Amino acid sequence: MTATKRLGKQTIKLQYPPSIVSTASIVGKKEGEGPLSKYFDQILEDALWGEKTWEKAESKILRETIIKAVTKASLSLGDIQYVFAGDLLNQCIGSSFGIRELEIPFFGLYGACSTMAESLSLAAMTIDGGFADYVVAATSSHFCSAERQYRFPLEYGGQRPLTSQWTVTGSGAVVLSSKENGPYITHITTGKIVDLGIKDVNNMGAAMAPAAVDTIYTHFEDTGFIPDDYDLIITGDLAQIGKNITEELLQEKGCNISRQYNDCGLKIFDNKKQDTHAGGSGCGCSAVVLAGYLYNELTKGNLNKILFIATGALLSPISSQQGESIPGIAHAVTIQNTLE
Amino acid sequence: MTATKRLGKQTIKLQYPPSIVSTASIVGKKEGEGPLSKYFDQILEDALWGEKTWEKAESKILRETIIKAVTKASLSLGDIQYVFAGDLLNQCIGSSFGIRELEIPFFGLYGACSTMAESLSLAAMTIDGGFADYVVAATSSHFCSAERQYRFPLEYGGQRPLTSQWTVTGSGAVVLSSKENGPYITHITTGKIVDLGIKDVNNMGAAMAPAAVDTIYTHFEDTGFIPDDYDLIITGDLAQIGKNITEELLQEKGCNISRQYNDCGLKIFDNKKQDTHAGGSGCGCSAVVLAGYLYNELTKGNLNKILFIATGALLSPISSQQGESIPGIAHAVTIQNTLE
Repeated sequence: MTATKRLGKQTIKLQYPPSIVSTASIVGKKEGEGPLSKYFDQILEDALWGEKTWEKAESKILRETIIKAVTKASLSLGDIQYVFAGDLLNQCIGSSFGIRELEIPFFGLYGACSTMAESLSLAAMTIDGGFADYVVAATSSHFCSAERQYRFPLEYGGQRPLTSQWTVTGSGAVVLSSKENGPYITHITTGKIVDLGIKDVNNMGAAMAPAAVDTIYTHFEDTGFIPDDYDLIITGDLAQIGKNITEELLQEKGCNISRQYNDCGLKIFDNKKQDTHAGGSGCGCSAVVLAGYLYNELTKGNLNKILFIATGALLSPISSQQGESIPGIAHAVTIQNTLE
Repeated sequence: MTATKRLGKQTIKLQYPPSIVSTASIVGKKEGEGPLSKYFDQILEDALWGEKTWEKAESKILRETIIKAVTKASLSLGDIQYVFAGDLLNQCIGSSFGIRELEIPFFGLYGACSTMAESLSLAAMTIDGGFADYVVAATSSHFCSAERQYRFPLEYGGQRPLTSQWTVTGSGAVVLSSKENGPYITHITTGKIVDLGIKDVNNMGAAMAPAAVDTIYTHFEDTGFIPDDYDLIITGDLAQIGKNITEELLQEKGCNISRQYNDCGLKIFDNKKQDTHAGGSGCGCSAVVLAGYLYNELTKGNLNKILFIATGALLSPISSQQGESIPGIAHAVTIQNTLE
């Protein structure tokens, strides 16, 4: 069939918008001490959660989060027709070993910290396209496994520059269904890779901001929406520096989002009290803010229409060692309580 | 909408089957000396292809392969609405840096060596669902970047056991369209993770075989097809050991595929002459065999209906060091010249 669901260059408008029927979030101790504490389903006392390694703990967090989300939807794992998931670890072992026992057809993703919006996009398209009735979108990150892999072993006690962000320990999972009555996923703007040449691996927010700007601006161009159509426009994990850049660059393009703009990396921690510098990051950051706080506000009616934009930095330690800059990507998803 | 396109447990039957309108493949020197030589678009003399590192060379191979496939379809990059791609490198930098300059909305995947079937599945669903008219599915691997990352630096000169496989240097890209007249993608069986506890990282074929068996068996259960409905059933990169196990395990379940069964990892090299031990592997293996040999045979009418099953081993060096076994996954795609 011809692509009847396209709007503009990079956006699709879903014809049969799927509903979010449940979400779940499990976070680490530090995230549980932050301002969004009451919205999470479970707060872990111990970053290892009884496992022998941080990587195994991350897989357990993802697995238990998915099981919790499915249970909260009064479904069983056998009802779920696909899982879309990914994480930050080399070869995405957080997801592979997390999903291994679930026996659900699995599409593995890699979008760095954009993964929650990527998984949500593909899960929603899978339902809208008539391929499934129940799909899970999920992701995870873990401070300890990420620090070891991307930067230094924790035991080294490295000094963190003030531009650096704190990788969230946690997982968020969303169950989408063809059958319920919202909140609905209605529009999806899929990002292109944008790389303006930033090489500072301790300043991810700045590296990802141009991708966020590109996707947000294109979203408004494609849909004809204006910022005031949204109660909230929230990026994934740009944190303080990236958020400021995003706002400023959009302003320069004549797009003022400051009234309704926020960032998951700023919501999750109290940066001053919690010593998290620029703010939170990691695939899990936007995932737990969406599955915890944002979903709660949507179902209570405190928010009625939001634009959720998860942002990813597509580097690796090897690409940086080889002198490469940091490519960014951002995917946007519109979530709303009612259908126009 | 309800999921009207489902068949059985794990399969979908596309309602508007997209066509493969062009493919391209670029391979390394060794692959160019193998039995499929004449089917590849370009054979590189040098594994670095003018780049400073193997990782950068892999990105270049992927990028040039995508550009070639798009050009062969008489399209421009701006016509392509999505790229689905992934690779084996940490944080999938083969794809990120390969796709960076193309300015096409990008869904990053990680399915290890199952990526070609994963990208083909999602690209086909995207067209069938009415979300796009032109989509590219692609993947790559590189012997030198993979050896360094997964095993030993090449300079070390490690001894390879006879069960080991040879990672293909190459990339395959497929352009799918809503508009042409075949070969069509008609059925997709998405795999679950299967892990029977194999831990030998030098015997990937054996680790992935149970996942291939699960997906192939489920495909026949779901669709009601029998092996004789296919001219060829071809797995991704199980190579000699994994192929034998797959055939045997399916036989035990009452499913005899020996008449039409082969494996891309066996087709690509002459194992005896080329010293490639059990056979080829890597994301690029099934990708270049599909984009080169299989697509040629389909368009010439030498093959009319094939089941293409790419297989992935979802391990990382860290998961193996932590004592984990090797989870496998396999995704199957039916490609046929005519619609029933």
